[in-house]
Amino acid sequence: MSKRKRKHSRMHRVPQRRPGSAPGSITVDPSASPTSIRVLAFGPDRLEERDLADVEALVQVRGNWPVTWIDVAGLADTDTIQRIGAILDLHPLAVEDVLHTHQRPKVDYYGESCFVVARMLSREEIGRGEQFSMFLGPGFVATFQERAGDCLNPIRERIRAGRPRIRGAGADYLAYSILDAIVDEHFPVLEHYGERLEQLEDAVMANPERDVIRRVLEVKHDLVSMRRAIWPLREAVNELLRDGGRLLTEETKVYLRDTYDHTIQLIELTETFRELGASLMDVYLSSVAQRTNEVMRVLTMISTIFIPLTFLAGIYGMNFDVQTSPWNMPELRWRYGYPLTLLAMALVGVGLLFWFRRLGWIGYRVSAPRE
Amino acid sequence: MSKRKRKHSRMHRVPQRRPGSAPGSITVDPSASPTSIRVLAFGPDRLEERDLADVEALVQVRGNWPVTWIDVAGLADTDTIQRIGAILDLHPLAVEDVLHTHQRPKVDYYGESCFVVARMLSREEIGRGEQFSMFLGPGFVATFQERAGDCLNPIRERIRAGRPRIRGAGADYLAYSILDAIVDEHFPVLEHYGERLEQLEDAVMANPERDVIRRVLEVKHDLVSMRRAIWPLREAVNELLRDGGRLLTEETKVYLRDTYDHTIQLIELTETFRELGASLMDVYLSSVAQRTNEVMRVLTMISTIFIPLTFLAGIYGMNFDVQTSPWNMPELRWRYGYPLTLLAMALVGVGLLFWFRRLGWIGYRVSAPRE
Amino acid sequence: MSKRKRKHSRMHRVPQRRPGSAPGSITVDPSASPTSIRVLAFGPDRLEERDLADVEALVQVRGNWPVTWIDVAGLADTDTIQRIGAILDLHPLAVEDVLHTHQRPKVDYYGESCFVVARMLSREEIGRGEQFSMFLGPGFVATFQERAGDCLNPIRERIRAGRPRIRGAGADYLAYSILDAIVDEHFPVLEHYGERLEQLEDAVMANPERDVIRRVLEVKHDLVSMRRAIWPLREAVNELLRDGGRLLTEETKVYLRDTYDHTIQLIELTETFRELGASLMDVYLSSVAQRTNEVMRVLTMISTIFIPLTFLAGIYGMNFDVQTSPWNMPELRWRYGYPLTLLAMALVGVGLLFWFRRLGWIGYRVSAPRE
Amino acid sequence: MSKRKRKHSRMHRVPQRRPGSAPGSITVDPSASPTSIRVLAFGPDRLEERDLADVEALVQVRGNWPVTWIDVAGLADTDTIQRIGAILDLHPLAVEDVLHTHQRPKVDYYGESCFVVARMLSREEIGRGEQFSMFLGPGFVATFQERAGDCLNPIRERIRAGRPRIRGAGADYLAYSILDAIVDEHFPVLEHYGERLEQLEDAVMANPERDVIRRVLEVKHDLVSMRRAIWPLREAVNELLRDGGRLLTEETKVYLRDTYDHTIQLIELTETFRELGASLMDVYLSSVAQRTNEVMRVLTMISTIFIPLTFLAGIYGMNFDVQTSPWNMPELRWRYGYPLTLLAMALVGVGLLFWFRRLGWIGYRVSAPRE
Amino acid sequence: MSKRKRKHSRMHRVPQRRPGSAPGSITVDPSASPTSIRVLAFGPDRLEERDLADVEALVQVRGNWPVTWIDVAGLADTDTIQRIGAILDLHPLAVEDVLHTHQRPKVDYYGESCFVVARMLSREEIGRGEQFSMFLGPGFVATFQERAGDCLNPIRERIRAGRPRIRGAGADYLAYSILDAIVDEHFPVLEHYGERLEQLEDAVMANPERDVIRRVLEVKHDLVSMRRAIWPLREAVNELLRDGGRLLTEETKVYLRDTYDHTIQLIELTETFRELGASLMDVYLSSVAQRTNEVMRVLTMISTIFIPLTFLAGIYGMNFDVQTSPWNMPELRWRYGYPLTLLAMALVGVGLLFWFRRLGWIGYRVSAPRE
Repeated sequence: MSKRKRKHSRMHRVPQRRPGSAPGSITVDPSASPTSIRVLAFGPDRLEERDLADVEALVQVRGNWPVTWIDVAGLADTDTIQRIGAILDLHPLAVEDVLHTHQRPKVDYYGESCFVVARMLSREEIGRGEQFSMFLGPGFVATFQERAGDCLNPIRERIRAGRPRIRGAGADYLAYSILDAIVDEHFPVLEHYGERLEQLEDAVMANPERDVIRRVLEVKHDLVSMRRAIWPLREAVNELLRDGGRLLTEETKVYLRDTYDHTIQLIELTETFRELGASLMDVYLSSVAQRTNEVMRVLTMISTIFIPLTFLAGIYGMNFDVQTSPWNMPELRWRYGYPLTLLAMALVGVGLLFWFRRLGWIGYRVSAPRE
Repeated sequence: MSKRKRKHSRMHRVPQRRPGSAPGSITVDPSASPTSIRVLAFGPDRLEERDLADVEALVQVRGNWPVTWIDVAGLADTDTIQRIGAILDLHPLAVEDVLHTHQRPKVDYYGESCFVVARMLSREEIGRGEQFSMFLGPGFVATFQERAGDCLNPIRERIRAGRPRIRGAGADYLAYSILDAIVDEHFPVLEHYGERLEQLEDAVMANPERDVIRRVLEVKHDLVSMRRAIWPLREAVNELLRDGGRLLTEETKVYLRDTYDHTIQLIELTETFRELGASLMDVYLSSVAQRTNEVMRVLTMISTIFIPLTFLAGIYGMNFDVQTSPWNMPELRWRYGYPLTLLAMALVGVGLLFWFRRLGWIGYRVSAPRE
Repeated sequence: MSKRKRKHSRMHRVPQRRPGSAPGSITVDPSASPTSIRVLAFGPDRLEERDLADVEALVQVRGNWPVTWIDVAGLADTDTIQRIGAILDLHPLAVEDVLHTHQRPKVDYYGESCFVVARMLSREEIGRGEQFSMFLGPGFVATFQERAGDCLNPIRERIRAGRPRIRGAGADYLAYSILDAIVDEHFPVLEHYGERLEQLEDAVMANPERDVIRRVLEVKHDLVSMRRAIWPLREAVNELLRDGGRLLTEETKVYLRDTYDHTIQLIELTETFRELGASLMDVYLSSVAQRTNEVMRVLTMISTIFIPLTFLAGIYGMNFDVQTSPWNMPELRWRYGYPLTLLAMALVGVGLLFWFRRLGWIGYRVSAPRE
Repeated sequence: MSKRKRKHSRMHRVPQRRPGSAPGSITVDPSASPTSIRVLAFGPDRLEERDLADVEALVQVRGNWPVTWIDVAGLADTDTIQRIGAILDLHPLAVEDVLHTHQRPKVDYYGESCFVVARMLSREEIGRGEQFSMFLGPGFVATFQERAGDCLNPIRERIRAGRPRIRGAGADYLAYSILDAIVDEHFPVLEHYGERLEQLEDAVMANPERDVIRRVLEVKHDLVSMRRAIWPLREAVNELLRDGGRLLTEETKVYLRDTYDHTIQLIELTETFRELGASLMDVYLSSVAQRTNEVMRVLTMISTIFIPLTFLAGIYGMNFDVQTSPWNMPELRWRYGYPLTLLAMALVGVGLLFWFRRLGWIGYRVSAPRE
Repeated sequence: MSKRKRKHSRMHRVPQRRPGSAPGSITVDPSASPTSIRVLAFGPDRLEERDLADVEALVQVRGNWPVTWIDVAGLADTDTIQRIGAILDLHPLAVEDVLHTHQRPKVDYYGESCFVVARMLSREEIGRGEQFSMFLGPGFVATFQERAGDCLNPIRERIRAGRPRIRGAGADYLAYSILDAIVDEHFPVLEHYGERLEQLEDAVMANPERDVIRRVLEVKHDLVSMRRAIWPLREAVNELLRDGGRLLTEETKVYLRDTYDHTIQLIELTETFRELGASLMDVYLSSVAQRTNEVMRVLTMISTIFIPLTFLAGIYGMNFDVQTSPWNMPELRWRYGYPLTLLAMALVGVGLLFWFRRLGWIGYRVSAPRE
């Protein structure tokens, strides 16, 4: 359970703020991963890729290549990140947003560049989500993620492999490609939840254990979190389409519209799954109620048959003295008293069985629950 | 159950994407049906219909007829389909959407042509749904469906029969006719679900078996899927009406408005059925609770009557030695001890029966449940 | 139940369509009522009313009177109705809508005339609803209903009685009067449902029988149907107010705004009743749960009191041989063994009763349920 | 209960209409209160207040005072009210709305005057609501209420006391003051419902009697009615603010905006209370289920302990003949047979008690329910 | 419980109004805290901070400093507060709103100044909320709070410490800083509720006591209250952004947009928590139902095993006279009668156990509930 708890807390974590602090002031998160910077600078014909130890080297890279991708993983070194912001002329408030994770996905425009925040999921670690921030400026894309490891390797490979479309296009096409990959990474994660919901639905119906509610709740929590990430993501992509005029070419916009369609599909799937999750609780309750009904029927049939019979046996177990009075239990001395009593008991029992059949309690549900 | 599982999975299947892949790149679906191409080219007076073995023959057909319908079934041969796209000047992203099924219904405009995606249902196989893609360009309509067999045969027949309205009109009228047929095919499918819901409602009330929840859930899943297809279909038809100016004549628009009305009716019916499905779960729970209550009443009445009587019988079954003390169970030696005891028992029993009648437990619900 | 079934099916009936058929083609409904045509032609000072045997006589009537009301009941004779459409220059799609009932309420404009579809209810037969179609053109109103008998007789009487307001006004005022009557006929029907809901609420609380759920569900179905008719009716009236400029005088619009207010009241009432109906299911469940609780309390009290006592009696009913050992049930031979045993039993019983009172199980709910 | 019924019926009463009647025709309500007319005419320095026996006297009053308030209570005398309408140039449809109560709150503009309908509540009689109609025209305000007695006395007092703000302002300020008083009178009524909901919440948790559902339902009905009155009231005030340009001075508009804020607060409170009311039903159900669980636990513990013990006692109550066979119940003749049996019973009982403690059934809930 | 009651009442308290009173008239709240006034007047280089005993001293302060912050705590001294309003040219209606707490958050513009109402929470006392009113005018900010003690000390410290950003900016930046601090103070409070919901979720599943519902309801009430404060707060900040043109510099607007994002995050968190709270009631019900089912299963198993066995024992406890007839219970005299009877009983018991295992009642849930 400790695992669940941790995860749950992570998903619904309330952003930490220090009320009254000045805007743009940075709070260092002690648990942040160490920062590493990799630069991919390329044009149609050439490519330079290197890890940046000293952030000042960025000054020389910038502006000398058609497209530069500054790819930062790990947010521990806030000074370096603020220095990158200064070199690239990024707005301090946006840099603050990079460092204070748990922003909602959004698009902001500052001067010539545009700032996108999204949530990056991972099909490898379901439930892991990290903040992904991206700046798109003239000739450069700067991306910031909380930890190394992401879903962008196919893009890096396409750049390295020299694919003409990505190498020949501008920074806006690179930004689109990155955003598209991040959006599409949601699909396998959602598929995972779809499968878990199917399993839970079967579990709820076959065997409504208490543990199942817990698992249903977990999936519900996760879907609520996904929803909180996906709705504003759709808005952000839409805003980019609508207002990104200066930054995006018409062709990139056509592609981005495709990404926008994907965010709508994500929303529809999330809502569908949320609805399924919600109905599972009802199914659970119905299933438990039905099982209780079956248990009760067994109890009632057994009790209804044997309690009267036991009473009958109790009658003839009384010790009234047959000697002192002829009125006292003369049956005990009849020749067929015992067999007749047994017969009466059998008749009562069989009569009750027939009654139960008429009530519909026997016949279709005395066997074990079918699977 | 395996059947249900398969179907369910199909309905909520999450689209498969390879995050980070270049836009327009095609993923081949190994389970796709083989591709067959049929061309119906016609004008008011002439008609040519043939199966196309070689896709290049399309080059000659195009442009020589007032209306050409390229009717493709099966999406396995992605090269051929991409070639058709090239011959007809279709946008690569649209062709990608044709091949990557599980798009949501939509309308996109690319240059001179317009691209419509819809979901094609079948009244023969309830629950079967496939992606239907249609391009409407100058003088041609190209349709793509996942499998052979569809609801468009009446249209083909009308063309072959030389009906003046369809033979004399342009490609836009053909496109409208196809869309209208696809929309109308939803009605018998919805009617099927309406009937199933009625049956389930009766089943839930007559006999709330656990199996019924499963069937209710299945219908709910199917209706959720239908809803996910119908809402965007309405949007798509609306967009066509609003923005299809260049492509549609005024007269076709009047007809298309009728189709739009039908999509609204579909939405209302789906929502109505969804609501009914949702309330069925409540009815189920109420029905089970009511049955449990009835079972409990039987148990309680039987127990309440016989447990005290059995206790009384137990009293006189005790073996206190009547010899050693006159205080020890003198009743056992009374002349009328036994009859009086039986009488007392009868009085207790009858008294409890009267009490139950006053409580309203007897009188209106001891018989079998009415149907 | 067969009655319910029939009704239910009628209310949610899915429109029948033949996918792929040409627009404007008429499907004959074999169960349609025979067609009768009555014409009321009038001006401020004169009035002619006659049943039309031959539809061609309409040609002479039209245009010779300030206002002509062509009042058609029964849709069996599709040829005649199509001929009326031709004489009055009605659009074929609109005439198709007249004949294919189960349209949603709407307003369409075709050239000079306007076409209104509504649902006509009847306070005499609750649950009966039929499609009412009306054309308002220059100098004429043509109405079509599925069966003879309607709520428009007061209007016919006002015309015959020569009331100046209706006789002096144009066709638009007549159309308003008809629409207003049809809207107002919804109120008594809704009132009927309001009363049924009140009765059901009392029934659910007094005696939650299973039959009650069925009746609640029936009302819910009917209200869902009413809602599906009323919402688009409001839209239609609104559209008429907004776009009916050419057809309606300013004064008629002032009156029509009143009708619009009535449709809003209808919507509010329907929603209120729907909400009440939905909460009834919860009340039912609570009521059953409460009754089950009461039944259980009785069972538990009786069992808890008598089961231990029966055990005590069982102890002294054992046959250990008091002769062979002084340890074997010496109580049986005590002088006051029996009275002491009875006393112990009484003490246990009374003690348990006090405990039940402390638990709150006795005292406020041993009597019959209050009504 | 008859009281409840009456009230309920009043709250949800469906407006009575005669479909097909001419607009503006008046239906006399036989239960209407007798009509009394009081006129308050005032300017900054002078004031005349009198009851009007003859309505024609109004002709002289009108126009001779800066502000005239015609204050009508009771709607029985429809002729007089129609005559007032004629004298003040009010539109016949508006006068019809005054007399046909159960209008929804609204604002209508007719020529120079404006017509406001609202619902007037009373903190003295919770649940009493009556229609309040007000005309604001040049130099006059005419108000109509169903019965004498209202929340407007503080305003009358302020006029009589000669407060400069109300005496010096125009008719629009008077109209605002009246509307503000009527809106504010909703607050104590809502507070009453808030308190009742708190009481019900405690009642539901302490002791979920069936009577509580009834009371919860009553509050829900009342809140539904309030909501139906308050939402359109907000709209009406908003419309007055937006379109009342000719009739309201800028200063009055500033005040009216305050009234508008109050209607929004009313809506929020009503929605909050409705939500609380809805959740009470769930709490009730949970509370009953929890109590049933507790009852069941007691039954199960008692039964589980004593039923096996009774069985043991039953064993040694059997009459197998120890004489005929040494195999027949030799225990009965053992020296310590009886004490050992009692010991065994005690061990079984104590063991079961320990098991129940491990199951968590004992220890935290054997005592009476805490309050 | 008295504590809960008090708190609850405070949260949903309905605003007290005297209907019919003149606008701008002040109702004195007898429980208001005593008023204290502190003035912080500053420019980039200088700072004056002092407590104001005499409100008239304000006249000299005003206008002599770039920014003056009049910081009022406690609303008991209504005359002083009205005098402050007069000195600063504040609108009487706004001053009335300051004193009549329980306003909803809003922004109003009066002439040159703007009036903001918000709810100020406190992380120290969860559940405490007070009205915070702020006027932003040329060169001054005036804030009013119900009690001393707030979350604004970091801002005061930043001013005293001479931080250039706040000392160099205008009154609009100060107003933004205050508003931002008040918005951000909501986050720790929401986090507190998030943690309580997690604890309650665990409590509901581990041990669904009745007390848990009460605590769930409390959190629900509090979240409803928070929601009522946060939604209009978002609107207010949005309005400030949109219409605050004259009062806010462009730079302050960029910062305020950040505050606006925070209000959206607050809304999303509140809605998420509300949803979790709502689902807890369902979980509770399911959990209770599941426990009842388990209890019933134990009862049914014990009863089903021992009731038939007790009946068997009862049979051989009957006293039929074996002497008088050979038909009377000959088993009692068999050599192996007793052992055979015990064997039969054991077989019946073991058989039933096997049946229960087949039904799935034993094996996975006889142990104590897992935690």
